Amino acid sequence: MLEDKTPQRTPLSQLGEFGLIHHLTQHFEVKQASTLKSIGDDAAILDFNGKKTVVSTDLLIEGVHFDLSYMPLKHLGYKAVVVNLSDIAAMNAKPTQITVSIAVSNRFPLEALEELFEGIAMAAKIYQVDVVGGDTTSSQKGMILSITAIGEADEQEIVYRNGAKENDLLVVTGDLGSAYMGLQVLEREKQVFQVNPNNQPDLDNYTYLIERQLKPEARTDIRELLEKLEVKPTSMIDISDGLSSEIIHICKQSKVGCNLFEEKIPVDPQFINVCEEFNIDSTTVAINGGEDYELLFTIALEDFDKIKANPNFTVIGHMTQESEGIHLITRANTKIPLKARGWDAISE
Amino acid sequence: MLEDKTPQRTPLSQLGEFGLIHHLTQHFEVKQASTLKSIGDDAAILDFNGKKTVVSTDLLIEGVHFDLSYMPLKHLGYKAVVVNLSDIAAMNAKPTQITVSIAVSNRFPLEALEELFEGIAMAAKIYQVDVVGGDTTSSQKGMILSITAIGEADEQEIVYRNGAKENDLLVVTGDLGSAYMGLQVLEREKQVFQVNPNNQPDLDNYTYLIERQLKPEARTDIRELLEKLEVKPTSMIDISDGLSSEIIHICKQSKVGCNLFEEKIPVDPQFINVCEEFNIDSTTVAINGGEDYELLFTIALEDFDKIKANPNFTVIGHMTQESEGIHLITRANTKIPLKARGWDAISE
Repeated sequence: MLEDKTPQRTPLSQLGEFGLIHHLTQHFEVKQASTLKSIGDDAAILDFNGKKTVVSTDLLIEGVHFDLSYMPLKHLGYKAVVVNLSDIAAMNAKPTQITVSIAVSNRFPLEALEELFEGIAMAAKIYQVDVVGGDTTSSQKGMILSITAIGEADEQEIVYRNGAKENDLLVVTGDLGSAYMGLQVLEREKQVFQVNPNNQPDLDNYTYLIERQLKPEARTDIRELLEKLEVKPTSMIDISDGLSSEIIHICKQSKVGCNLFEEKIPVDPQFINVCEEFNIDSTTVAINGGEDYELLFTIALEDFDKIKANPNFTVIGHMTQESEGIHLITRANTKIPLKARGWDAISE
Repeated sequence: MLEDKTPQRTPLSQLGEFGLIHHLTQHFEVKQASTLKSIGDDAAILDFNGKKTVVSTDLLIEGVHFDLSYMPLKHLGYKAVVVNLSDIAAMNAKPTQITVSIAVSNRFPLEALEELFEGIAMAAKIYQVDVVGGDTTSSQKGMILSITAIGEADEQEIVYRNGAKENDLLVVTGDLGSAYMGLQVLEREKQVFQVNPNNQPDLDNYTYLIERQLKPEARTDIRELLEKLEVKPTSMIDISDGLSSEIIHICKQSKVGCNLFEEKIPVDPQFINVCEEFNIDSTTVAINGGEDYELLFTIALEDFDKIKANPNFTVIGHMTQESEGIHLITRANTKIPLKARGWDAISE
């Protein structure tokens, strides 16, 4: 029997706006007790029952934030949700609902949106958040995604960026830089593909890095873990733009300085190998490459014993007086001022 | 003395993303008691103190939802906020906060974004809502605006689309169709301008219509008014897509039918004149033209006496059994099935 490999392509106009919204959202289940009314009216109704409401929003534009030539739509949907949940986690709050708005040009058939929503649904299921609203519209060019995440927290749980104190320890979850190197690998494969479309890429040596780029996770597990360890961070932020940029945010808002130790920065062995292959300095990438979506936080010195044995956490520095400035202490023990250069810095 | 008429144009790259956000949002004041933490961290923190949270979101794309050749940026900012507050009002809730995300291509200088945010700030001030978050990014083409509105309500106050009952009266606020005819006037002037750029348009006869299109208002006043009159609607929706489309939403979700009376539909005298000038049927426009942002709701028959003397309200029909269908009763007393055709219907 011959398989029909022609992909099915249903034009969006066939469903109309309301039909499309119904088609894409019909399988979303309500799981949060705080969701009183979800999709289907002018607005959603939420009940946080005395808890504080936490809100964050992000806008993702094709060609600026993602490239569909190597980003499968399902991964895009998943990642778009994760990026927003990460912001809620960075307040030490629990994400509970999201709204999802999308605009697409007529080059996208229904099947493309189904794939995108499959990724959104998968993230919603894994992170136990309800999709409670959104908007579906057309764009003149490309795909646009706007996601708003809503969460809940008790007032005393919430951690802001501005609470770091002198002598606090600087702690990071997971490892850094891999998402950026994953992107470099994908960019290289894209160029190879453009020269020779029949070339089958061998990506076995890069699986961890590519997964960190295409399917990052939000560290919503950290809130519970810290609660169990009885540690409340003094300040917290998520790493979306790069470690140095986030450290500077905490320092500026908390009015403190910081010493970051190069030798302490956690990285994956695969990451080191690929930096060597690309002939690129691994510390530069670990400090400036973004999109790791790990959490960066400060804790009081006396809490060190509570976290030191936990493999999720690495102490990478300590906070100083504001007048001392923000520095990287290299392996050679030289002191370099830290700058928020982001990704541009790496390609210089 | 000669005036320098060269407009000042500051490239966005001069400020950087964080500088830009600070520059544009520094004058936003917090006015709502429920806003605990606004812009400046990973997320905003809201406290509704036992009330329910109401959330709605909208995505506006240049070339699809607005045309900057006749929509001044200040008006666009104002309208983008109003459109979202209207959704909150349509739940009989009180809007309290918004988040604003924008993406712009490099054709927009800083001064353009300042103008846009001036309109956003003006709407926030007039409607007493706090701007608590957002995202500013670049786009490959044109301007994209995503606004999420948040509101509060006691559970017993909230009005859904699905509560209309047989024999309920169908009521609308304000008048209909003017926003659509305002758009027609602006489109005509745009074409005149393209032929002869020196032609100064005389828009005196169209001021009301143009204002309805460029600077619509959200009926956030209706909630308090109905409370004072001791009327709780059985269902409610705002008129964004056109009266017929919204009636059908209420009927489908409430499982009822409806008779809408042509002679009762409230329109402005200027609207009638311009429909004649454009040789277009005024009822067709009043029923299918959208963007009036008036509220459409149903009330129990026994509440009629409470609203009948109020100039804000017009009874335009009544709900029937679902099996009777949804009809327009014309001035000639013929019964025509109502269809949700939207703007396309008018140009047919």
